[in-house]
Amino acid sequence: MADFKNEYCMHTHTCGELRAADVDAQVVLTGWVWHNRDHGGLIFVDLRDRDGYTQCVFDPDCVTADEFHIAEHLGREFVIEVKGTVRARGEGSVNPNMATGEIEVLANAIKVLNTSVTPPFSIEDGIETDETTRMKWRYMDLRRPEMYKSLFLRHTVAQAMRGALNARGFLEVETPILANSTPEGARDYIVPSRPNPGKFYALPQSPQQFKQMLMCGGIERYYQIARCFRDEDLRADRQPEFTQVDIEMSFVNRDDVLQMMEDVMAEVLAAVGVEHEFPLQRMPWKEAMDRFGCDRPDTRFGMELVELTDIVRGCGFGVFSKAVEAGNIVKAINAKGAGDWSRGDIEKLADVAAANGAKGMAWIAYTTDGKEKSPIIKFLGEEVHEAIKKAMNVEPGDLLLFAADTFAIANAVLAALRLHMADLLGIDRSGHALLWVVDFPMFNYDPEEKKYAAEHHPFTMVPEEDIEKIETAPLEVGSYSYDLVMDGFEAGGGTIRVHNAELQKRILRRVGVSEEDLEVKFGHLLHALELGAPPHGGIALGLDRLCMLLAGKDSIRDVIAFPKTSSAADPMTGAPNVVSGRQLKEVNLRIL
Amino acid sequence: MADFKNEYCMHTHTCGELRAADVDAQVVLTGWVWHNRDHGGLIFVDLRDRDGYTQCVFDPDCVTADEFHIAEHLGREFVIEVKGTVRARGEGSVNPNMATGEIEVLANAIKVLNTSVTPPFSIEDGIETDETTRMKWRYMDLRRPEMYKSLFLRHTVAQAMRGALNARGFLEVETPILANSTPEGARDYIVPSRPNPGKFYALPQSPQQFKQMLMCGGIERYYQIARCFRDEDLRADRQPEFTQVDIEMSFVNRDDVLQMMEDVMAEVLAAVGVEHEFPLQRMPWKEAMDRFGCDRPDTRFGMELVELTDIVRGCGFGVFSKAVEAGNIVKAINAKGAGDWSRGDIEKLADVAAANGAKGMAWIAYTTDGKEKSPIIKFLGEEVHEAIKKAMNVEPGDLLLFAADTFAIANAVLAALRLHMADLLGIDRSGHALLWVVDFPMFNYDPEEKKYAAEHHPFTMVPEEDIEKIETAPLEVGSYSYDLVMDGFEAGGGTIRVHNAELQKRILRRVGVSEEDLEVKFGHLLHALELGAPPHGGIALGLDRLCMLLAGKDSIRDVIAFPKTSSAADPMTGAPNVVSGRQLKEVNLRIL
Repeated sequence: MADFKNEYCMHTHTCGELRAADVDAQVVLTGWVWHNRDHGGLIFVDLRDRDGYTQCVFDPDCVTADEFHIAEHLGREFVIEVKGTVRARGEGSVNPNMATGEIEVLANAIKVLNTSVTPPFSIEDGIETDETTRMKWRYMDLRRPEMYKSLFLRHTVAQAMRGALNARGFLEVETPILANSTPEGARDYIVPSRPNPGKFYALPQSPQQFKQMLMCGGIERYYQIARCFRDEDLRADRQPEFTQVDIEMSFVNRDDVLQMMEDVMAEVLAAVGVEHEFPLQRMPWKEAMDRFGCDRPDTRFGMELVELTDIVRGCGFGVFSKAVEAGNIVKAINAKGAGDWSRGDIEKLADVAAANGAKGMAWIAYTTDGKEKSPIIKFLGEEVHEAIKKAMNVEPGDLLLFAADTFAIANAVLAALRLHMADLLGIDRSGHALLWVVDFPMFNYDPEEKKYAAEHHPFTMVPEEDIEKIETAPLEVGSYSYDLVMDGFEAGGGTIRVHNAELQKRILRRVGVSEEDLEVKFGHLLHALELGAPPHGGIALGLDRLCMLLAGKDSIRDVIAFPKTSSAADPMTGAPNVVSGRQLKEVNLRIL
Repeated sequence: MADFKNEYCMHTHTCGELRAADVDAQVVLTGWVWHNRDHGGLIFVDLRDRDGYTQCVFDPDCVTADEFHIAEHLGREFVIEVKGTVRARGEGSVNPNMATGEIEVLANAIKVLNTSVTPPFSIEDGIETDETTRMKWRYMDLRRPEMYKSLFLRHTVAQAMRGALNARGFLEVETPILANSTPEGARDYIVPSRPNPGKFYALPQSPQQFKQMLMCGGIERYYQIARCFRDEDLRADRQPEFTQVDIEMSFVNRDDVLQMMEDVMAEVLAAVGVEHEFPLQRMPWKEAMDRFGCDRPDTRFGMELVELTDIVRGCGFGVFSKAVEAGNIVKAINAKGAGDWSRGDIEKLADVAAANGAKGMAWIAYTTDGKEKSPIIKFLGEEVHEAIKKAMNVEPGDLLLFAADTFAIANAVLAALRLHMADLLGIDRSGHALLWVVDFPMFNYDPEEKKYAAEHHPFTMVPEEDIEKIETAPLEVGSYSYDLVMDGFEAGGGTIRVHNAELQKRILRRVGVSEEDLEVKFGHLLHALELGAPPHGGIALGLDRLCMLLAGKDSIRDVIAFPKTSSAADPMTGAPNVVSGRQLKEVNLRIL
């Protein structure tokens, strides 16, 4: 069905619109020649536009000889206008897999609007063409129905997001893209300014500063679907420019923001036909780390982490008992269904553990025929082994994978192994799971640098009762921060902000900001807080990733019209260009 | 009235919401202390938020002594929460000029959410604070009700635009901001890329190339509220980054685009309460030049240009007769009401003429008491003077201003004088006038450079019947181009594009593109046209200027949250920064 009235255009209907009820209608269609064939003296053309495709039939009795000649010589991707009459297909030719499969259009006129040379690849879904080729001819790639579907989904998500926010009193405000470096700044793009020799703008990594200023400016409810920038290498899930749904509110607490976001997400999911239960689970950060080993758990399957520290304390297996003695932890997952794997296949998993910082990987396999295989059972002692089996709910066919390390590493290792095993075991992860992870600690500590850093960012509000601990027990300080997690990805995150200048200074000092930098780098913010900043907080959602997940794609490049690729030297989608000497001279720069 | 439900927040009502019907309600308000005063033992506070303001009354009998003390010591711009009861104001205290003027809130509790140091200027409409100060504390400036009103209008315009386009099947697609230089390129911002030493992105001056690629990609109907960039100096009506409503459609002709745009504009104007007649006038470019001397006429007043070339041919005034002999033109405007001006005041107008390229300015004044003043009457001869008077419909009190020059200069001079005289004479230009200017010539000719250039751009479609003249008579070639003119400004412009590769090459050759550059600079576009590009065209509207006109402001800075100013060295709104040596080194650059 056409998603708009056919006005302001050459055609009377789209190529996906005609049905049995339209039989006998005189229609005009425009589109691209998708498939064409000659059969029984007739020419059949599947005419495609963004809305679908329609079979057009050219009969030498119904068009002029010239027109029939044109129809005979159409090439793939020719652009044509067809006038004709809708007629029902014969009994055997109805195509139930095709939206317009009940009918065809018997042409009485044809006009070629443009020709085409041979396309570089087929305009079909699921092609195996390499990405470089697809990107070089991105405009051809975009003609593939699944690409249009992705862009349409993205459009739908963006409009639903806006609609839901507009209805709740949020104002869309545009903030600058030519901005100045933020205090972190290491990864900013810098942009020389022609009229100001030697001076540079920076492209914002997020509108964080601007949205806080908008709250200080009394806007109260702001959003923006904002372009953000990070001068980094490309990855399948990362682009140097990305799009963020950026939201900020005044006179709110944490629960206000979460409730608002859930209500908005419910509307967005409904707009794209995804069902999900609300209210969303709110999982404390500590629980997420304990059960899933990470702060963005994929809760669509189990295989949760189990802590064994107390069970293995003082056991005969030195790796475990020494870890416990050193104040570290021992945890494991139970990969049900892998108990019969070969020793070699199991040992290969140690690579995943090593990539996440483990020095080794202990395991115990329980075969379906009741045997036990493991390099460590003999050291554990029977009592400890039985206790482990009980804690891990072991059955024949299970594989236990262990990590004994610091809190951070042990969790990272098992979180990675959990996802890896889910992939290898083909565990069902269809559908979507959204939840909140809340109650992040305010600070973390880097023992090498001997420095505290903010877990989210230093503008995050801490609970009233924790304020006194900023100086005395920073690792015990909580925070009003939250991440929206979807299918194991961070879909968004935010915090309630500090709105009091004195508290802001204490937090900044805690993360090592000098008195001088308080003025030089943060003076602007602190002055704004001193001039009646309201309590405020917000959230930012990654639109690219959200759309990737909703579209069921593996790469965000499939939900962006013109993504960057490092390989394609294409003016539309490619890597950056070499600029001319003249351009460099105009902005007073030289390449080193 | 609140424009949203009071949910997800601390307050039960906004400060602009309460009415007589709410009397006796228990309410919670939050906002900023706007005005406060002590009267008859009571404290009166005007509490302001973005929605309006409400009078809150603190009575020592209704709050604790501590709370009364707090109320007594509130400073301007303190952020507070007030709980209380709505009560009707006494007979004499109802304020009909205030939305909440029927009521006041008798406080029974107060909480200070944040304090404020003394504001740098008053948070009031119509302040005379200089712009540098306003920009330095832009967040304070944004608290002024008129600033909020401007941002709200901009929000409303953007949402209405989106709504109207969504309903017509347009897809919002984001195109890259990190792009590559366009062939014109002189004014692109360039952005060094860290992972690619010596290589640069360019920020797009418009998404023109991308939107044409989207049409080649079968998107059919695209729009984007897109940020665009020009590395140029600042002006009151120009920012280095600006926002464009960018629209493109396939399978359309010129009238389709105009009709679509009119229907969308009708919805946008309705959303902001502006009445305008539709359909809009479609004025050929030649008529606009003849009658108003420019291609963006302000049609809200007359004082049209009158051509006198034939009348003054061979007359005794050498400036006129020689101009005609040289193939130039002679035109005049009649500034009614200026006939009694002093010779000195009239001669001052010659500065305006000179600024637009005139070598002098002839004039004739007709005083209200029937006299004629002029340096040129004596040369004209009576017959010619009478003919001029008739052509110009002269009455006592009129002032004729003449231009005798090339078509371009004579029109530019009188167009400028026309607007200047309208200002000086206080001619009413309230309300809004929209119209189309259509039928621009395809090419213009620069006699100095001896080169043809495209009047709009070289991707513009020419009428079928003019194609053969591209090589033989380029100045006679028409074009499918159009500007949307509002109140004497170009609010938008567009064209039907060339979709045929061969025709595109002929036009590019005509404007001087070499065979080599056809491939190097335009190869990408030409290949796309060869691969089944559909007929397409579009338009782009300048959102900043449109909002400026609709908000009745003189500067686009008043409809942008954080505009650039050359003076303010502020991280939010200011000029670009000096970057650190480290940052420069990271991108392999040196300042010359």
